[in-house]
Amino acid sequence: MFVKISLSTTIKASLSLSSLRNIQSYSVVMSKFDLPDRLKGNDKSVWVEYIQLALKYKPLNLGQGYPDFYAPKNVTKALADATTSDNPLLNQYTRGFGHPRLVNAIAKLYSKLLDRTLDPNNEVLVTCGAYEALYDVLQGHTNPGDEWIIIEPFFDCYVPIIRTAGGIPRFIALKPKRTNGLLSSADWVFDRQELESLFNEKTKGIVINTPHNPIGKVFTLNELEFIANLAKKWNTLVVSDEVYEWLVYEPYKHIRIATLPGMYERTITIGSAGKTFSVTGWKIGWAYGPANLLHNLQVVHQNCIYTCNTPTQEAIAVGFEQELERFGQPDCYFVSLAKELLPKRDYMAKFLSDVGMIPTIPEGGYFMIANWTSLKDKIRLEEETDENKDYRFTKWMTKNVGIQGIPPSAFYSLEHKHLAEDNVRYCFIKKDENLKKAADILMKWKSQ
Amino acid sequence: MFVKISLSTTIKASLSLSSLRNIQSYSVVMSKFDLPDRLKGNDKSVWVEYIQLALKYKPLNLGQGYPDFYAPKNVTKALADATTSDNPLLNQYTRGFGHPRLVNAIAKLYSKLLDRTLDPNNEVLVTCGAYEALYDVLQGHTNPGDEWIIIEPFFDCYVPIIRTAGGIPRFIALKPKRTNGLLSSADWVFDRQELESLFNEKTKGIVINTPHNPIGKVFTLNELEFIANLAKKWNTLVVSDEVYEWLVYEPYKHIRIATLPGMYERTITIGSAGKTFSVTGWKIGWAYGPANLLHNLQVVHQNCIYTCNTPTQEAIAVGFEQELERFGQPDCYFVSLAKELLPKRDYMAKFLSDVGMIPTIPEGGYFMIANWTSLKDKIRLEEETDENKDYRFTKWMTKNVGIQGIPPSAFYSLEHKHLAEDNVRYCFIKKDENLKKAADILMKWKSQ
Repeated sequence: MFVKISLSTTIKASLSLSSLRNIQSYSVVMSKFDLPDRLKGNDKSVWVEYIQLALKYKPLNLGQGYPDFYAPKNVTKALADATTSDNPLLNQYTRGFGHPRLVNAIAKLYSKLLDRTLDPNNEVLVTCGAYEALYDVLQGHTNPGDEWIIIEPFFDCYVPIIRTAGGIPRFIALKPKRTNGLLSSADWVFDRQELESLFNEKTKGIVINTPHNPIGKVFTLNELEFIANLAKKWNTLVVSDEVYEWLVYEPYKHIRIATLPGMYERTITIGSAGKTFSVTGWKIGWAYGPANLLHNLQVVHQNCIYTCNTPTQEAIAVGFEQELERFGQPDCYFVSLAKELLPKRDYMAKFLSDVGMIPTIPEGGYFMIANWTSLKDKIRLEEETDENKDYRFTKWMTKNVGIQGIPPSAFYSLEHKHLAEDNVRYCFIKKDENLKKAADILMKWKSQ
Repeated sequence: MFVKISLSTTIKASLSLSSLRNIQSYSVVMSKFDLPDRLKGNDKSVWVEYIQLALKYKPLNLGQGYPDFYAPKNVTKALADATTSDNPLLNQYTRGFGHPRLVNAIAKLYSKLLDRTLDPNNEVLVTCGAYEALYDVLQGHTNPGDEWIIIEPFFDCYVPIIRTAGGIPRFIALKPKRTNGLLSSADWVFDRQELESLFNEKTKGIVINTPHNPIGKVFTLNELEFIANLAKKWNTLVVSDEVYEWLVYEPYKHIRIATLPGMYERTITIGSAGKTFSVTGWKIGWAYGPANLLHNLQVVHQNCIYTCNTPTQEAIAVGFEQELERFGQPDCYFVSLAKELLPKRDYMAKFLSDVGMIPTIPEGGYFMIANWTSLKDKIRLEEETDENKDYRFTKWMTKNVGIQGIPPSAFYSLEHKHLAEDNVRYCFIKKDENLKKAADILMKWKSQ
């Protein structure tokens, strides 16, 4: 029964020599413990790779999307208060589908925004980050053979989750209407005929992301209506990933597709406390939608996580309650953060332009993509071995110039990665001094 | 294409009348959005049902396993410090497979306990509670048709996770060697011939839980060696759920199966910060084991959660560092908590005996099962409709006596639920005043 050990290259790479030796001294048949077929291909992650790279080369990191400045004091104080409070139960298990105080606050906020009364116990599910909410909805609503329409570029977890459940992603890319001059994220559009052609009787749903990461596009009413009509025509779900809902720059407005006529019934909307309150490390997200659709998410949630961090949920609830009190006022964090980010966006757009890149000015979110190809003569792409040029560009820049971005082809299907190769994604929710450093590094490099 | 709505009873129950009306006013084909086949049967949860019951009847709750007293001040202070610290990054995303400070602390602790150097980056994975670690290992190591041996009673998430991945659970029950007199959890044993007969070439692994919930059994060296030899003979994994590793009462000793010869290579051990530091609501757990086996868990983790709560991980790391400093001393929380719980255990055993139940004295953990059948004439089981008597007993007691336990048949396969019907599970990690209240409630009821 014991056969020779055969380790895949991936696994070998992650094993130290000493642990390999230990394994070889026992007759363990390793192939029996290979990754199951449904998970194969899910092991590559741009995040794992680029965080590793950042740890090694210590570049100025404009890669991952998180602020490097302080989270609002009222929410961090609320967490400190919750964990050290007189109520010892705030450190213990809470209700699995969401801490009562938090689901009440979420329901109150979105009841106002949707102009419809949400039932906090059946129409809201709290999850371990929006990431888990995406997992729950895509796992909970996918039968083998179900098709999901995915707009490229996409948040990279959508696809492995769908594939693991036996679903089939069908891709449609946002493309810029033009490639010269100052680009806005509004220039990035989907081809309507192409989108229509993807819908069929096997379509389970479409995933949209507005404001969009990494393009920054804020979908227009007209675009959302077009999508909504197709969803109704083909009786499909809409999963609306709205984690950047408050990060919209004037004069643009975020529109929730769940508010369009006949759409609440078929829409699951996903939000994020990490993005809303600048605490990405808190890993609290939510999904809201009709009870019958949320039921499937609850079943996945209760078998993989069961319940989320209690004191953090309490703190987010306090945060929501406080913002609801000052809702509509200029000091409400829901609007003040975007106002704070606007000059950062414009500063980044300027220094990227100055260095010779062509940025797309985002209407929302905190990412900016920029075409870097005019700089190609200053970069020795041949020193890197990745298949896609944007991977080679970002790695070379990390190692040689000391600035890190993310290669957007990570957010495209295999067949469409070439569409992204000329671009890089940078994040601008960073301290002014760090954005200044980034500008200095790039300008110095350009002048060399 | 639009057909009549057909909603399952389960879903109907969770919908308010008004949301049903809303659904009916649109022609949504609901059956298209039914739970996928692989998730069917996963929607029942004893926790959801009994927490609902507790909210409604407000009994003295000895159901769910969490302390109702303060968590140790050093860890709650560490969380408050982390979130309000000078380092804003402690509220942002950290390394996906575990916050560096925490994986270092975990590796340091278990390197000492296992007398073997663990690589913090490749042999430790931090998860959203031990619950997610169980999900990651059982999802990450199950191909359709793989068999897992499960010892009954079992933590109730094992089975739906295995089934969702297409695996087949094979059950073997712990049974008491005798049923009269004072019972110890050591009296509960598995039949060795029966266990041996379950292993075959389709066996992927066995899940053990020591100290055991709800029996309180601390597996002996001899029992663990028997299991280890079968695992080596049949080349299977061992998943060792050791979340109660520090909750062992003198003179018993917790033995980690990963320390037995040739076992580290095939064992994934699961631990819990919630159980270790009395903060079940923090939802931080971990798995450790050889890098090649952990790789499969990492792949599941990075597609469903990606990364866990940062400030909580920082706080747990601080907690571990502090306990490592006083390791072996009487004030180390790893031993002081069990010392604090011992009189609570004995107090509960006494009042349950006084009222006429036959408790099993646990060697470890913080649960006690007790045979309640001598009290059956005082209970109107016929007022409850559940199939299993222990469900009827616990529900009736919640509603009529004001004390809530958990029905242990929830932790058995369908075919073995009858084995558990005479018992109830109570939790004794509760304030003395609440245990006293429980005793008073039961004695008053008995004397009526």
